[in-house]
Amino acid sequence: MTHELPQSFRTAGIACGVKGDPAILDLALFVSDVPGTAAGVFTQNKVCGAPVKVSRERVPSSDVRAVVINSGNANACTGDRGLADADRMTELVAEQIGCESRNVLVCSTGLIGHFLPLERLETGIPTVAAVLNNDADGYLNAAKGMMTTDTFPKQATRSLELNGQRIQISGAAKGAAMIGPNMATMLCVVMTDAELSPEDADTAIRDSVNQSFNCISVEGHTSTSDTVLLLANGAAVTGPLSNDDLAHFKTSLDEVTIELARAIIQDAEGADHLITIDVQGLLTREDAYKIAKTVADDALVKTAITGADPNWGRIVSCCGRAGVDLAETDISLSINGTLIYKRGNPVEYDEQKLSNEMRDNRDVDVVLSFPFGDASVRFWASDLTQEYVRLNSEYTT
Amino acid sequence: MTHELPQSFRTAGIACGVKGDPAILDLALFVSDVPGTAAGVFTQNKVCGAPVKVSRERVPSSDVRAVVINSGNANACTGDRGLADADRMTELVAEQIGCESRNVLVCSTGLIGHFLPLERLETGIPTVAAVLNNDADGYLNAAKGMMTTDTFPKQATRSLELNGQRIQISGAAKGAAMIGPNMATMLCVVMTDAELSPEDADTAIRDSVNQSFNCISVEGHTSTSDTVLLLANGAAVTGPLSNDDLAHFKTSLDEVTIELARAIIQDAEGADHLITIDVQGLLTREDAYKIAKTVADDALVKTAITGADPNWGRIVSCCGRAGVDLAETDISLSINGTLIYKRGNPVEYDEQKLSNEMRDNRDVDVVLSFPFGDASVRFWASDLTQEYVRLNSEYTT
Repeated sequence: MTHELPQSFRTAGIACGVKGDPAILDLALFVSDVPGTAAGVFTQNKVCGAPVKVSRERVPSSDVRAVVINSGNANACTGDRGLADADRMTELVAEQIGCESRNVLVCSTGLIGHFLPLERLETGIPTVAAVLNNDADGYLNAAKGMMTTDTFPKQATRSLELNGQRIQISGAAKGAAMIGPNMATMLCVVMTDAELSPEDADTAIRDSVNQSFNCISVEGHTSTSDTVLLLANGAAVTGPLSNDDLAHFKTSLDEVTIELARAIIQDAEGADHLITIDVQGLLTREDAYKIAKTVADDALVKTAITGADPNWGRIVSCCGRAGVDLAETDISLSINGTLIYKRGNPVEYDEQKLSNEMRDNRDVDVVLSFPFGDASVRFWASDLTQEYVRLNSEYTT
Repeated sequence: MTHELPQSFRTAGIACGVKGDPAILDLALFVSDVPGTAAGVFTQNKVCGAPVKVSRERVPSSDVRAVVINSGNANACTGDRGLADADRMTELVAEQIGCESRNVLVCSTGLIGHFLPLERLETGIPTVAAVLNNDADGYLNAAKGMMTTDTFPKQATRSLELNGQRIQISGAAKGAAMIGPNMATMLCVVMTDAELSPEDADTAIRDSVNQSFNCISVEGHTSTSDTVLLLANGAAVTGPLSNDDLAHFKTSLDEVTIELARAIIQDAEGADHLITIDVQGLLTREDAYKIAKTVADDALVKTAITGADPNWGRIVSCCGRAGVDLAETDISLSINGTLIYKRGNPVEYDEQKLSNEMRDNRDVDVVLSFPFGDASVRFWASDLTQEYVRLNSEYTT
């Protein structure tokens, strides 16, 4: 599938040498030809990369023009020099596209604790700006330029009609994969030619992240660089959206971010299974979220699923340690539609059949039901394989 | 090393058939010949095994006579029948040693969600009671009877003089290892011939667990069955301990529980390294604990150490996501005595030398220092290896 850009956006991706391999893209540029609204959601980690510090100060905004992203170096734990380097990246972009550096956002992902090879960006940024275009190829290269150990670029697109006008939402993301002495990082840029106020953009992307990127787990580590940005340049519609149109827009935005979040889990390092965890019937979404995240992060659940073992004891035990007030007899569990545990009692089922299903399919659905209320959450997780450990323990120093 | 029992304790371990292999011990009995004080610390998991429910009601107490433990079946998630079975185990012991069932405590570890093969215990408990003795061999068998996939029995002993009288503290534990469709469980029985009031025993064991078993992590999963019991029969001393003697006793008790906790991590499934994490200079122990546990549970830190990679970025990032109010510039990090990160700045060091050290030694020491106060915590964790994943994902259904 080719992914198109919304109107008046141009993108490009090149190899500028941060990764040291002229065949591997490591620099991506996303530009709106007109100043647009931008909003962002950033890592909650108290230790955060210099680009997070720089970008966070610049959103929400109504006059952002571009996002520049390098992979191969996270520019994190790099002190004042790191901050200056991140700002310099935005300055270089601003010079190329004709705006102020404050109109440019920046992300970096890759090695931590190393200074950026700034000379490569000094030449790389003019080079990538020179090949900006609005076709699918340039956009694919931009998505590739964000990648670290991702095995495929992640893009998602939705078109919708708002008030008779066709608008588009196009998102690109990179996943929670690790390289070298580094940590999981997820980055995402979503572009739309709808018009949004900074406040609406901010609310929309925060709400959307809560349904998508905050509901995935590879190993539960919040990185220093996680960033999700929404750019809305209004090129396709004149005037702000009505409340109905905004709701319509948000539904499509959620589809884009959820598709990208799932793609990150699909591509998690070494993963054999994509686990979808539905937790239903709680009093609050917060309670449902606690249970889902406890299951999603659990090494015992993950390894059981790797082994195609419908090991309900490990899942039920997660419910009990999630910090939610509940009793054994409140818990019911289904895996792939097979009821296994009902209100605290084991249910007879065909273990071998279910195990074969889990072995032969990449997707595993876990549904935990409770009798307390109507709140629910859906969460996606990868399993934990020997390959994950191999990739993350390989000698790198 | 042989481990002796305190005065007026007898123990035994046999194979009674719960595991289905006559060569593998699966039943342990610990008996005090005189009624003694007992206190316990139990899993915080809301889903807990029937033996936890039964034993928890019976402590603290001043007239406990015995602890019976089976391995191979956790008797968890087994409803009312499980409760009746756990109580029946204590009844069978009481009949043999001449007391009430309420004077007997019970633990089970192993498969979850399966009813106990009670008929094997009906014959097994009289058999194990018949071979009770006070020598080191019987005690070693008791320690073996608790084991699941532990590769060695775990015992620790301390002797001390209190008010001119020699008393002894002897503990046996089983580790956080997993079998079949099961979860990590740790069990520990500590016996002493000192005399303690139920209140002092309760405080002593709770405080001790906070320094030992609550400071270890294999994968951070609180099991349904975790139990630590302290039995104090007073056979060696007449009369309660003075405050000074009690403090002296508690110091030795901590040594015993810490030695056992470390042995559990030494024997963690698939572990290549024993990681000791010291977190120092926080305002409260709670803050230090949060940071230590975040590092200890982190899959990225664990896999880096498996790979002998002094990957400080992952450790520093854990500090930032631990839920403690801190900044990058508050963090200093040493590994094996080598300063790597000082107040937010990378320090030049010999990466290759440190990595070689980590590769060639089982022990890795991580020290995180902060400038806030005097609170500290010491934590022990295993690393995360491909072998761990293999063991926990092997097809078991």
